[in-house]
Amino acid sequence: MTLALPPTLARTRELVEPALRTAIDQLDPTSRRLAAYHFGWVDADGAPSEAGGKAVRPALALLSARAVGSSECVAVPGAVAVELVHNFSLLHDDLMDGDTSRRHRPTVWAMHGAAAAILAGDALLTLASEVLLDTRTLEGVRAARLLAAATRELIRGQFDDVTFERRDDVSVEESLSMAAGKTGALLACSATIGAVLAGGHPTALVALSEYGAELGLAFQLVDDLLGIWGDSDRTGKPVGSDLRARKKTLPVAYALSNGGDVGRQLAEWLAHGGDSDADVAHAAHLVEAGGGRAWAEQEAQRRMTAGEDALDAAGLVGDARDDLVALGRFIVSREA
Amino acid sequence: MTLALPPTLARTRELVEPALRTAIDQLDPTSRRLAAYHFGWVDADGAPSEAGGKAVRPALALLSARAVGSSECVAVPGAVAVELVHNFSLLHDDLMDGDTSRRHRPTVWAMHGAAAAILAGDALLTLASEVLLDTRTLEGVRAARLLAAATRELIRGQFDDVTFERRDDVSVEESLSMAAGKTGALLACSATIGAVLAGGHPTALVALSEYGAELGLAFQLVDDLLGIWGDSDRTGKPVGSDLRARKKTLPVAYALSNGGDVGRQLAEWLAHGGDSDADVAHAAHLVEAGGGRAWAEQEAQRRMTAGEDALDAAGLVGDARDDLVALGRFIVSREA
Repeated sequence: MTLALPPTLARTRELVEPALRTAIDQLDPTSRRLAAYHFGWVDADGAPSEAGGKAVRPALALLSARAVGSSECVAVPGAVAVELVHNFSLLHDDLMDGDTSRRHRPTVWAMHGAAAAILAGDALLTLASEVLLDTRTLEGVRAARLLAAATRELIRGQFDDVTFERRDDVSVEESLSMAAGKTGALLACSATIGAVLAGGHPTALVALSEYGAELGLAFQLVDDLLGIWGDSDRTGKPVGSDLRARKKTLPVAYALSNGGDVGRQLAEWLAHGGDSDADVAHAAHLVEAGGGRAWAEQEAQRRMTAGEDALDAAGLVGDARDDLVALGRFIVSREA
Repeated sequence: MTLALPPTLARTRELVEPALRTAIDQLDPTSRRLAAYHFGWVDADGAPSEAGGKAVRPALALLSARAVGSSECVAVPGAVAVELVHNFSLLHDDLMDGDTSRRHRPTVWAMHGAAAAILAGDALLTLASEVLLDTRTLEGVRAARLLAAATRELIRGQFDDVTFERRDDVSVEESLSMAAGKTGALLACSATIGAVLAGGHPTALVALSEYGAELGLAFQLVDDLLGIWGDSDRTGKPVGSDLRARKKTLPVAYALSNGGDVGRQLAEWLAHGGDSDADVAHAAHLVEAGGGRAWAEQEAQRRMTAGEDALDAAGLVGDARDDLVALGRFIVSREA
């Protein structure tokens, strides 16, 4: 079930986009132009456009400040910084994965070559820490350290992803650890950074970080389900593309480890199977028969509940808590 | 004339390398392994090796602390951070330039693929700011901001480099601006960051930064001369490789703008000339006849003098000043 777009997201864009544009204006002209295209502010010809992302991470950042009783405004540099790191990673990822389109537009490397994507990504990563240090506050420094640690975790997860594609067998534990790095780390940071900038209590920070981390795993589980059974019109990816690429996604890792005979057939297909639509459909059937689909659906639900429980256990209540939960449920609600 | 290795460099490695290794130990296992290879601490099989670089930037960082009357020790995080940023940029550059060897060993991307070089570079860049913020001092934050600004300048210079290769004509001013970004910014930061960590007086910081920036331009001028007339055994690059790649280096930009008829012949060669050894030798002759060689040699000397004058004008005297000057002269003394 896809939920309606939470009002938080529209408000976030109003509050954060001007600050994001001001930050991007600090970059050299080439990085600035490439970033404006990548963010969807201009089209390939430089004409104004409105093709931007949903700004989920900035929204989490703003809500985290509200969750500790502060104004959203104090969280704006954090919201900008997590969005910059997210987009640094998209620029480099699209190149590494050879993905030629994103949000139905050509990717930066596909339009302007590898060097453009590498350097523009580097520029966004550098800018992210500057935005936080430019606050000239102790909280800004704490936020910059939190973001740097999350970025290193993100890189670890991406290294795992690259390595696992070449391996025959990946355990569920390894696959969860990869997802915790690749997806969970920056979401955990996003759901905490505003509270850090607001000088929130450590108990609240830990709970918010846990909420973001669980949300990240739930999101990745749903993303993996969509990568196998998703409607390609909605996902923008060909049906079964993850299987065709032999990605050891979470449902696949589960079926391999827990599917018994079916798991062995799946392993055999990953090693020697064909690439036709029928072959891929057969593999999807093996993942389902091996319990991978049902497990991933239940695990995503379990993770969301664990995250929400963490907020409650820390005594976070009120509108901000409700908005955080609504945003989280929206993020993982895309039709599987 | 190549000068003897200044003792400063050996002392720097003793002081900085343990801290650099400690920083690298914070990385994920894959980044750590790739960094250890890239830094020359291990060979391709993981066996211990001693193939490291000269640590010029860390040496500048330590000397800058001494130049403002402080102990070198306070500058160690700065020395580590500039070396991390330098090596982040080498990892990404080698990939973008398609260079398959560095210091007579295969580059990381050539051994392990593009994703390895991109992600390991990203990890080093992230770690650089962490090392400074981990000092938990106000000076550490100032140093992190200085380094981030220098990194953005470095990226600007690299974008210029990529763009200029595709253009027919580049002015001397544009070429100097590119070198100021690509080479000058991080050397200026290196020659200042230790003094920033030591809480040095603004007058000294400005002079040190100017010294590093002029040193960077002098170094780039000499590097460009070596790229055309250098001995390939010493440079590790094929003779004339910069000309063959149609790089608009400083001597080339000068000859194009100031060489009159010879400059026009050079422009013609850049646009339509052949790639044989005789063709490249002919182009080198045109650069020389157009005044590019003599100008670059004089300009390098002029830049060094300007840098040394800046130190003197700020009243920086004593051993540290003399060691800075000796190190600078060593850096630009490689045989052209």
